[in-house]
Amino acid sequence: MTDRSRKGSGPLIIIGGHEDKDGERIILKEVAKYVRGGRLVIATVASHQPEGYFDAYKEAFGALGVTDLVELYVQERSEAQDEEKLHLFDGATGVFFSGGDQLRISSQLGDTPVERRVREIHEAGGVIAGTSAGASAMSDTMLVKGKGQETHRIGDLHLAAGLGLVRDVIIDQHFAERGRIGRLLGAVAQNPRELGIGIDEDTAIILRGDNFEVIGSGGVYVVDGGGVTHSNIAEAETDRALSIHDVRLHVLCHGDRFQLGDRRPGMAEAQRVAKAAES
Amino acid sequence: MTDRSRKGSGPLIIIGGHEDKDGERIILKEVAKYVRGGRLVIATVASHQPEGYFDAYKEAFGALGVTDLVELYVQERSEAQDEEKLHLFDGATGVFFSGGDQLRISSQLGDTPVERRVREIHEAGGVIAGTSAGASAMSDTMLVKGKGQETHRIGDLHLAAGLGLVRDVIIDQHFAERGRIGRLLGAVAQNPRELGIGIDEDTAIILRGDNFEVIGSGGVYVVDGGGVTHSNIAEAETDRALSIHDVRLHVLCHGDRFQLGDRRPGMAEAQRVAKAAES
Repeated sequence: MTDRSRKGSGPLIIIGGHEDKDGERIILKEVAKYVRGGRLVIATVASHQPEGYFDAYKEAFGALGVTDLVELYVQERSEAQDEEKLHLFDGATGVFFSGGDQLRISSQLGDTPVERRVREIHEAGGVIAGTSAGASAMSDTMLVKGKGQETHRIGDLHLAAGLGLVRDVIIDQHFAERGRIGRLLGAVAQNPRELGIGIDEDTAIILRGDNFEVIGSGGVYVVDGGGVTHSNIAEAETDRALSIHDVRLHVLCHGDRFQLGDRRPGMAEAQRVAKAAES
Repeated sequence: MTDRSRKGSGPLIIIGGHEDKDGERIILKEVAKYVRGGRLVIATVASHQPEGYFDAYKEAFGALGVTDLVELYVQERSEAQDEEKLHLFDGATGVFFSGGDQLRISSQLGDTPVERRVREIHEAGGVIAGTSAGASAMSDTMLVKGKGQETHRIGDLHLAAGLGLVRDVIIDQHFAERGRIGRLLGAVAQNPRELGIGIDEDTAIILRGDNFEVIGSGGVYVVDGGGVTHSNIAEAETDRALSIHDVRLHVLCHGDRFQLGDRRPGMAEAQRVAKAAES
């Protein structure tokens, strides 16, 4: 197990897409809480065109008391060093990556002054959140492409380097809704050092230090390949179906916790108290 | 582990639906092989109306050398004791259950003379095959309803008693294609004695005695809940997302084998030989 500790860093809120924006807003409320009255930068860079994401989030977060919102959009990678763009981060205590194409996030921002500002804000205790493509981009290796709704074909997977805000995990989103267990198993088979985390829509993990808590209405699937005894990922023809034995799978729901270090789930505090009261 | 041995019985060929009927026909070829020149009864009872399934299978099996094919259809349960229906099984060495609604199979045939004839043919060494609904109906407990493409909601699952040709497993079909991992996990959570087996389209397991082999183009997912340390299936409100920790998951492809008794996967003979040759 490599070092995942990010002591002193702020939380990561990693969202499976389609988070509730006008009802209870359980997930956005958590983001707002961690912004602590500072500025929130909405990074819409995953979009090929600015598409009104900013307006939607401005309304949703405005109602939650986050009033200092700015949009970061870069059309071209060269803009990611503009002074004007960097000034958007002045006073920022949070950055929120919206959905789109995760390769746009990594290709436009990777190794730029803007990316360094995001990292600085995180290291200073700020919250970094991402939904859908913005969720995938959080890890060091990110899933870019791979069919849903079928058993994984060995050659049908595209990975790329992500922002690396969390290490040794691969995140997938819109998870149950798009039938993505197969492609996440394929990614884990390639290197079981990576822990697979599949997040449903309107569901998020809040990662602080070495452990996360699940919030929202769906499930979070943790695919642990550490004990895998056999896979055909490196052997067979590329259109062959994946074979992988002895995966450990956890499904977590709202309130469940998980430790990345020892790869163990834990019950929510409330459940623990209720259990203790029962016995 | 309860007794699953069915010594002397013929094979069960359990198919995830949409098996190839006009190409290589890998799965139907296996069925034809085990029919060994006898009669094959195509049971279309899962259909609410006879829908041309028989003609399609007549053509597909005819080209594979199975020429003595008859259709068993019952509109009403009372017909399942008619002499005329029972005579359809004369000389039969195989029965093939087509798709439709698994509750039609169990409600029309359960505890009838027709069901007893099916069991006799199986015990005499005949092959019993089933695809889609016909696959689900094979086990003692069968999955009837439950949403795909989302994380399982605790109350959203309908089970019923199946034909019981194989015990202590729950079979699901059209598996990856309809995103059914969530509902199978829900079924296993209800009682981990049941081993969950999810079969993709154009994919089948051939079960002989205590072990099966996978054939076809997709995957077979085995969900083993024996080591589960926590689930909320009995605790929470019915629309709550499922939480289940420490599931063991295997994904198997063409050529893989699995032992039901000790719940262990095994490599195909060909792979074993290839591995031995490498080293």
